[in-house]
Amino acid sequence: MTTVTGHTEAIPASRVIGTNVYNAAGESIGSIEDVMLEKTSNDIMFAVVGFGGFLGIGEKYHAVPWSTLDYDTRLGGYVVPFSTDQLKAAPAYSVKELTEDDGRAARDASFAHYQVEPYWH
Amino acid sequence: MTTVTGHTEAIPASRVIGTNVYNAAGESIGSIEDVMLEKTSNDIMFAVVGFGGFLGIGEKYHAVPWSTLDYDTRLGGYVVPFSTDQLKAAPAYSVKELTEDDGRAARDASFAHYQVEPYWH
Repeated sequence: MTTVTGHTEAIPASRVIGTNVYNAAGESIGSIEDVMLEKTSNDIMFAVVGFGGFLGIGEKYHAVPWSTLDYDTRLGGYVVPFSTDQLKAAPAYSVKELTEDDGRAARDASFAHYQVEPYWH
Repeated sequence: MTTVTGHTEAIPASRVIGTNVYNAAGESIGSIEDVMLEKTSNDIMFAVVGFGGFLGIGEKYHAVPWSTLDYDTRLGGYVVPFSTDQLKAAPAYSVKELTEDDGRAARDASFAHYQVEPYWH
């Protein structure tokens, strides 16, 4: 997540959850349903973004890298630097799938799809 | 956070929030009110633990390092490796204080108090 100068560095997870998400064109694409955390490291695994109204598929979520969320005060939500096509083609998962295989299969495939540098080594 | 073998690595923030917390003696000391996240890194800053019933001070919270939370399936909550005396003497903050100064003053003082290795550099 990036932030403008002057904003605080700390944000409670409860305040992130429920925030709207917009694509690079400023179109609403869903909202943050949850934030997945790693138990055995200090890392934020990914944001769980619900795109139900966008993709028309219920109960499916995207695993969006935390670093790609940019809060836009004008829109009052997070903007991700992805096109509509990129988002439509992104892997989507059920909540069960997001936590299975330690969440790593969903994480790895999603970071690769969005072409985001892995935070893990 | 540590976890036993066989557990998944991923946990949604919404599932962490509301979970009971116990001290090293297995006594209930409060619950996790929130998880503070860093906006400009991939890090979990600390867990916000409410000790209202324990300390008798309303609206004050402890900033507990994520790495110290150990889920105990028998207790159904997190155990922290701190004594009652150590917790009583721990710095406590209002939600406002936890986010002020980028949350770093609260974070730094708390990690020092609990003698936990900083995750930051």
